[in-house]
Amino acid sequence: MKNLIIRTISILLLSLSTAYAADPLPSWRNGHVKQSIISFINKTTQTGSPDFVPIQERIAVFDNDGTLWSEQPNYVQLVFAIDRVKALAPEHPEWRVTQPFQAALEGDLLELRQQGEDGLLKLTTATHAGMSTTDYSKIVSDWLSTAVHPTHKRSYTEMVYLPMLEVLSYFKMHGFKNYIVSGGGVEFMRPWSERIYGIPPEQVIGSSIKTKLVSRNGIPELIRLPEINFIDDKAEKPVAIHQFIGRRPIAAFGNSDGDLEMLQWVTAGSGARLGVIIHHTDNEREVAYDRKSSIGRLDKALDEAAIRNWLVVSMKSDWAQIFRK
Amino acid sequence: MKNLIIRTISILLLSLSTAYAADPLPSWRNGHVKQSIISFINKTTQTGSPDFVPIQERIAVFDNDGTLWSEQPNYVQLVFAIDRVKALAPEHPEWRVTQPFQAALEGDLLELRQQGEDGLLKLTTATHAGMSTTDYSKIVSDWLSTAVHPTHKRSYTEMVYLPMLEVLSYFKMHGFKNYIVSGGGVEFMRPWSERIYGIPPEQVIGSSIKTKLVSRNGIPELIRLPEINFIDDKAEKPVAIHQFIGRRPIAAFGNSDGDLEMLQWVTAGSGARLGVIIHHTDNEREVAYDRKSSIGRLDKALDEAAIRNWLVVSMKSDWAQIFRK
Repeated sequence: MKNLIIRTISILLLSLSTAYAADPLPSWRNGHVKQSIISFINKTTQTGSPDFVPIQERIAVFDNDGTLWSEQPNYVQLVFAIDRVKALAPEHPEWRVTQPFQAALEGDLLELRQQGEDGLLKLTTATHAGMSTTDYSKIVSDWLSTAVHPTHKRSYTEMVYLPMLEVLSYFKMHGFKNYIVSGGGVEFMRPWSERIYGIPPEQVIGSSIKTKLVSRNGIPELIRLPEINFIDDKAEKPVAIHQFIGRRPIAAFGNSDGDLEMLQWVTAGSGARLGVIIHHTDNEREVAYDRKSSIGRLDKALDEAAIRNWLVVSMKSDWAQIFRK
Repeated sequence: MKNLIIRTISILLLSLSTAYAADPLPSWRNGHVKQSIISFINKTTQTGSPDFVPIQERIAVFDNDGTLWSEQPNYVQLVFAIDRVKALAPEHPEWRVTQPFQAALEGDLLELRQQGEDGLLKLTTATHAGMSTTDYSKIVSDWLSTAVHPTHKRSYTEMVYLPMLEVLSYFKMHGFKNYIVSGGGVEFMRPWSERIYGIPPEQVIGSSIKTKLVSRNGIPELIRLPEINFIDDKAEKPVAIHQFIGRRPIAAFGNSDGDLEMLQWVTAGSGARLGVIIHHTDNEREVAYDRKSSIGRLDKALDEAAIRNWLVVSMKSDWAQIFRK
């Protein structure tokens, strides 16, 4: 019975995808990369293929910052944290002369960067904790509805990559469960991931702070604590994937050395595997950066891509369009 | 497009469920409890109902031990740990005179219980860590394929409650995502949850130990460490649900005080909510226990059930059949 339903649904999905998507990746220029992605989908989902993968094993993981949306000139969540410092500053007069808050208030990103991880941690816990999970979600949504990217002058949720939206949709249509696996805060992404990416909150994995169940007037609530629970980066990405999903994905998309271990782990499994690196090569339509960048550095993973047969997407040559018009 | 698919699928599911399941809960005796469950499904899934819940919000959580399968006379995972101690004993001669291992080797469950949480922790880390996640999964599967319940003389995976399998299936047919939220080890449940419950590994939440990514001959692997990561019990259940799912379920099933906070948190949300307690009242077909039991104690949650309008299932009178024949 269950199998019947799954099979019926997958046939339905396949027929819909055929009917609606003659070219499933219209924003991708024809070439090796696009053909390889299409070939991966064909061989893992077509009945009778020697690389066929049952629908329940079709799991794909996607980094977020720099893979699904732009992380330049600054991580969106950092911009959010700075804006939160500004909003909360009247209650904290001491912040005007205390780092990293002073740098945040003065918009001094160079100084902020020099405060290092410890500074970022202070900034995060001061601005992301102390409220209920429900309230935090609303704060994020409200901020995103008004915040504007400094150079593109559009909202951050419009800074998502159209070619990647097509990949998400293409994979989903073929029975894949798409997961975000990001170094960013999980609760920062969940309020909008379903609307923007078609990825429901339960398929978003990320960094987190601790929460605690408390009772306010007899009503239980989860309160966000100023204490790190998990940093979902580098070697912790496979750890988190295993903890949340419990099986190894068969496809992984990333753009930086923070995704190296995730790509290694996913593509080391048996059967057909897809590893993809988004290489930021387009200085006209976005920002070109890789080995020397302090944000989203891509160095080791770029070297490994050649050895391990990962696809390297050149945003400049492989993507006909980067953002929605 | 996405909405179209979701709607089509849900109509498909509904029509299938209508066609195949005249009585969706055949092992449940007619009465208030059964009717209330059916009424909950009808009002949350029928278009036009004032309590209609969109398909993506249909999340139900189920405790495992004592809710989906039997936890008497001992938690299955404890029996597994004891058998692991026996299997590993030749490599650990010191265990013959060291607690809690001595008690485990001698099958002295009373002594084992007196070793308390600290003893259980030692037993767990000694038997559940030190191998790759893949190897651990195989150890669990192998054990379950041969282990036999002491009084029922059948495998533990046959000790699941038929009426609850019907509930899982009934909910799933109506677009619900069913999650296990158990105090048991998440990796102890995942190897068989899909086959037995139709619940895929990514919908199993439980207690966990830490894992670490290591490279063996260039192949990345996750190794299980002898260190607790998370105990998924009591007030931590809502914490875990929020961390893994990111939204509040609308239905919760439990059987003990360990599920109290989960039931409170789920049923405190707005809109239609369902809280259900499985009350072990049948001393002939299973084991009758509640307020005084050291395993699966049900005391506070039973008092709260009346106040908060949770359904209390009497296994004796509400279930026509408990196990598969």
